[in-house]
Amino acid sequence: MDKNFNYSNLKLGIIGGGQLGKIMSQKAKKMGFHVTILDPTFNCPAAQVSDKHIMGGFHDKEKLEQLVQETDVTTFELEHVDTSILKELFDNGHIIHPSPYIIELIQNKYEQKKLLDEKGIPVPKYKNVENDEDLSAFGFPVIQKAKMGGYDGKGVQMIKTKADLAYRLPTESFIEELVDIDKELAVIVARNIEGQTKCYPVVEMLFDDRTNICDIVMAPAKISKEVEKKSIEISVKSIEALEGVGIFAVELFLTKKGEILVNEIAPRPHNSGHYTVEACATSQFEQIIRAVTNLPLGSTKLISPAVMINLLGEEGYEGEPFIEGIHDALEIPELSFHFYGKTFTKPYRKMGHVTILDDDIDMALEKAMRAKDILKIKGSKKI
Amino acid sequence: MDKNFNYSNLKLGIIGGGQLGKIMSQKAKKMGFHVTILDPTFNCPAAQVSDKHIMGGFHDKEKLEQLVQETDVTTFELEHVDTSILKELFDNGHIIHPSPYIIELIQNKYEQKKLLDEKGIPVPKYKNVENDEDLSAFGFPVIQKAKMGGYDGKGVQMIKTKADLAYRLPTESFIEELVDIDKELAVIVARNIEGQTKCYPVVEMLFDDRTNICDIVMAPAKISKEVEKKSIEISVKSIEALEGVGIFAVELFLTKKGEILVNEIAPRPHNSGHYTVEACATSQFEQIIRAVTNLPLGSTKLISPAVMINLLGEEGYEGEPFIEGIHDALEIPELSFHFYGKTFTKPYRKMGHVTILDDDIDMALEKAMRAKDILKIKGSKKI
Repeated sequence: MDKNFNYSNLKLGIIGGGQLGKIMSQKAKKMGFHVTILDPTFNCPAAQVSDKHIMGGFHDKEKLEQLVQETDVTTFELEHVDTSILKELFDNGHIIHPSPYIIELIQNKYEQKKLLDEKGIPVPKYKNVENDEDLSAFGFPVIQKAKMGGYDGKGVQMIKTKADLAYRLPTESFIEELVDIDKELAVIVARNIEGQTKCYPVVEMLFDDRTNICDIVMAPAKISKEVEKKSIEISVKSIEALEGVGIFAVELFLTKKGEILVNEIAPRPHNSGHYTVEACATSQFEQIIRAVTNLPLGSTKLISPAVMINLLGEEGYEGEPFIEGIHDALEIPELSFHFYGKTFTKPYRKMGHVTILDDDIDMALEKAMRAKDILKIKGSKKI
Repeated sequence: MDKNFNYSNLKLGIIGGGQLGKIMSQKAKKMGFHVTILDPTFNCPAAQVSDKHIMGGFHDKEKLEQLVQETDVTTFELEHVDTSILKELFDNGHIIHPSPYIIELIQNKYEQKKLLDEKGIPVPKYKNVENDEDLSAFGFPVIQKAKMGGYDGKGVQMIKTKADLAYRLPTESFIEELVDIDKELAVIVARNIEGQTKCYPVVEMLFDDRTNICDIVMAPAKISKEVEKKSIEISVKSIEALEGVGIFAVELFLTKKGEILVNEIAPRPHNSGHYTVEACATSQFEQIIRAVTNLPLGSTKLISPAVMINLLGEEGYEGEPFIEGIHDALEIPELSFHFYGKTFTKPYRKMGHVTILDDDIDMALEKAMRAKDILKIKGSKKI
């Protein structure tokens, strides 16, 4: 897509139709582009706001090919995708960003870590698990991670003692030292086709203890200038090592000793960047569209501090969602309410989020905690 | 819709599928609502981002009835609508905001003006035109306005001399004194079902001389505290006089003598409030959804000064639009690009807009003027 390309006709394909695809599509539609979603679920969140929905799974080669053939550019809202047909199409000159080779690399958390390590990027100590003895190599406690398929705390577990080895993940995995974490940070990095990068502010993620799902995001993080600078440096270096085009979320550990280590990278918009919709000049969702369509990257300036909280399905409920507390929560000033339009809730499913703006980040956090107390996503059926 | 209503199922109907309906729908979808658009045009901007499209005209009683029957709440992106069937449905208890009685009143600019005048709101001197002599009652020059159907400078003209009477609008009309305008201002007012109002900042509108279409909007307006206060006071009083629920744009004249007069009121989101998407805590488009669905009104706080410019179809072109300059324009920092997805351009048609944020409003204006110079909406056919 060069300067003579007619952007008023641009056809974008998105693999995945959840909340990330939904907001990406809304931003692409804002810019007047035509959007097609590939997703197996009828009436998925992104399909509700897009021009076309191809119903197909992420391993359905025929449907993946159809999406790429029908559109000018294809991108992703998730990385758990069959890459074989995409690599073929990519090699034949179809525009797919990030490249399916990068998606493939990132799918394997061990290979991802190895690459970063080889490029001199600080990561926690790790070791491939080839046999049961390897699990004990760092002593206990230790973190075991599945190489493939993990998300939202799934595919990651702590093995506390030797006896816990009985409950090891029964899949290809690696181990990681248990890091003494002070804070979990994240940096969203955009990279365009020319290799130019732009960074969003460093944010702080707080996790739900029960599920290890990211619960609260504070933008900016409460960290020193030095930690901020180093976090950004490491994040940009990581994405330059990958040579990807699009949006990448770099999850970082700040250790109690003050080291900064890369935990993992997501090759797409990320929960830790939801706040950018309300708080930054260009949201991560618009930024990926700009990057993959060869438009200039937008400003990542933080217009206002913000706190984001996820709205997870309440424990004990499933079925058609009911938003308890919506009236009271929307009384909170400078609160923006997102509900994804999923027709079925279950415990801890990501159903929506809210973002609160406030010049004072502590006040934003206080308002967010209030919203979290008030808003409950219940379901039509008690379980 | 009370606190027990299940908002995850809420069905919203919007009459009109242009750019205003499009952004309204995107905000309703953000909150997870189901949106149906009524519009006669296949693939109109709002239909592209909504769940359902009823193809029908704004005077098609059957289709208007279908929309109201199928949804929980109906609202408007335009006021030129047949109100008879809507009044019937409203009287039978269907939720329609603003009420079709208010839409009907506002459709007639003369009746609108009369009501405001009767409620003590300052308006330019005006007079009903019952016969040709009435056109001369204020001397010349004088403004003649069609009572019904005007928009974007259409249905308004200046009669400069007695000789110009030959070119008078051949329709039911009234005359208005020619006001010595210093600035044209606008205030967006939201009003909810309980009668609570919230005001957006006073903005300044600059008009294209050739077409009298609002061209540039500066938020906030460069006015004294006193003019600001009075503008807000008059605007709120106007909307309280109407007793409408939703979003209302009050267009004001600031005269060279320092008077503030109400020009006219639009009972819906308005071009002068586009900037609220990027610059305010709650956009006018989300605010109308909150108001008509009986949710609390959101904060109207200005997070950053902003300048909005319209992207009108270039003179001399029609057909499939081509966005000239998109690469260069998107290099401008803190610029947000909106393109409506209309498949046909013609001279002066509203095809998109851009909003620029900057802490310094003069800098925002400078960037906006640069974008205006760069971006040209040309068409596939020279005319």
